[in-house]
Amino acid sequence: MTDADKQKLAEACAEAMFARDRASQKLGMNIVSVAPGKAVLTMTVTGDMVQGHGSCHGGYLFTLADSAFAFSCNSYDKATVASGCSIDYMYGAKEGDVLTAVAQEQSRGKRTGIYDITLTNQDGRTVALFRGRSYQVSGTVIYSGEES
Amino acid sequence: MTDADKQKLAEACAEAMFARDRASQKLGMNIVSVAPGKAVLTMTVTGDMVQGHGSCHGGYLFTLADSAFAFSCNSYDKATVASGCSIDYMYGAKEGDVLTAVAQEQSRGKRTGIYDITLTNQDGRTVALFRGRSYQVSGTVIYSGEES
Amino acid sequence: MTDADKQKLAEACAEAMFARDRASQKLGMNIVSVAPGKAVLTMTVTGDMVQGHGSCHGGYLFTLADSAFAFSCNSYDKATVASGCSIDYMYGAKEGDVLTAVAQEQSRGKRTGIYDITLTNQDGRTVALFRGRSYQVSGTVIYSGEES
Amino acid sequence: MTDADKQKLAEACAEAMFARDRASQKLGMNIVSVAPGKAVLTMTVTGDMVQGHGSCHGGYLFTLADSAFAFSCNSYDKATVASGCSIDYMYGAKEGDVLTAVAQEQSRGKRTGIYDITLTNQDGRTVALFRGRSYQVSGTVIYSGEES
Repeated sequence: MTDADKQKLAEACAEAMFARDRASQKLGMNIVSVAPGKAVLTMTVTGDMVQGHGSCHGGYLFTLADSAFAFSCNSYDKATVASGCSIDYMYGAKEGDVLTAVAQEQSRGKRTGIYDITLTNQDGRTVALFRGRSYQVSGTVIYSGEES
Repeated sequence: MTDADKQKLAEACAEAMFARDRASQKLGMNIVSVAPGKAVLTMTVTGDMVQGHGSCHGGYLFTLADSAFAFSCNSYDKATVASGCSIDYMYGAKEGDVLTAVAQEQSRGKRTGIYDITLTNQDGRTVALFRGRSYQVSGTVIYSGEES
Repeated sequence: MTDADKQKLAEACAEAMFARDRASQKLGMNIVSVAPGKAVLTMTVTGDMVQGHGSCHGGYLFTLADSAFAFSCNSYDKATVASGCSIDYMYGAKEGDVLTAVAQEQSRGKRTGIYDITLTNQDGRTVALFRGRSYQVSGTVIYSGEES
Repeated sequence: MTDADKQKLAEACAEAMFARDRASQKLGMNIVSVAPGKAVLTMTVTGDMVQGHGSCHGGYLFTLADSAFAFSCNSYDKATVASGCSIDYMYGAKEGDVLTAVAQEQSRGKRTGIYDITLTNQDGRTVALFRGRSYQVSGTVIYSGEES
């Protein structure tokens, strides 16, 4: 497959997956770009995302990073799920902040992979670092009938 | 402080915090019980939480566990935030599932602590295991004005 | 298989594995007990384990916990390796300390599992908490010829 | 401080710390280079590092990465310890392999930091990825009397 074909495949996977992904849609996520093993997503922190200390709930920071992880590890049209993830928080986010998640593949073996996601705010400040562990299951991404 | 006082304090912290926690409220979370260093929360998986492979987005599993973590580590009326968390997935969740998160303190030092959260579904099956690292900041939980 | 047979198998696995495990032997580790999904090991911190701040190198705390993890997840005579681990430090260890690692299975699926290991010192103080992710490969533990 | 002064300080910290670090010395670790927030170390896998499945014990992979982490986060002459770490394994190491750990600072706040360490073998293959969380304590690195 040429690099151009791989890029087209990554974009087709993201389009098909996002169309079914009510969670990411509902949260107002926007896919800025995808490429093989890569994805960039943005999301604006809304009032519904604020927790009991007045900041964006860590769960929503995680969710944005996790979606970027999902789009990057599913860019080869092989259905792939998360086996586990970790997140470290650097800087709080508040209502109105526009967050960007950049996902980059670090390693990809036969079935498992490691993806690093950096979350920054509109001032370029690092909000959180996320590492995801992926696991390839049976089925494809574009035609999702066979997914497990 | 007597055990009964500690228990009252934990309940007052949870009440005050939940009242300000739009994120957890909006997701339909329910606090089943709190105690010093402990919290039990439930949440039903809705259609808005489903991702591109047809299961509950890992971000929402994380968010429920993270809220249980927050209520358990903020049960002493010392404002406490997460420095980082990890989650491992065991079993998928789907629309309609009722998830329970049980948070239990494993360790608590002067400023930092470790909390383990187990996520199960309505059949008692373990959905995910979560470990949170807490960091005590200045301020209290019940009167939140001074929190950082 | 009866519970007594499972226990015998766990003990046979540990014996066979420890005989080949030069690393754990060389560090003076001692297997206190094993059972299906469980293992208890001890190790004394020696002068060769001290790092540049005068405490036991975190690598040796990790290594003891990791060995306890290995003995617990290999107790079914299915060759099983670590896919990843995390450790959180609570309290420093120094030369002469006698450390105990207690490994307990939290979850075990078809191929993957989660194991929690608690590391304490001779005063019962928690030194570190470790969580290991296991992955079952082909081959057995007792007869190791086919292991990958 | 000029960049040249910062570089000199990083080298002085590494030298002072390594002189006291019996653990890293004893394992035959070699400091290839240090810089502010960076460190490169090598270690050869010996027969004493082999575990019950015939590969290098994960504890020794961790220990090399952990030392690289320590030298990188202590390069500012502020005594800094690990609060926690995670490691993901990609490829096994065996007796005779020469491993290189490259540590790179990802984030550094007032007291805490995040460092990523990549472990490769002599063929350039990635063996493991390590992420360390640092915590600055009181005291300096070069004159270690006041360290906690």
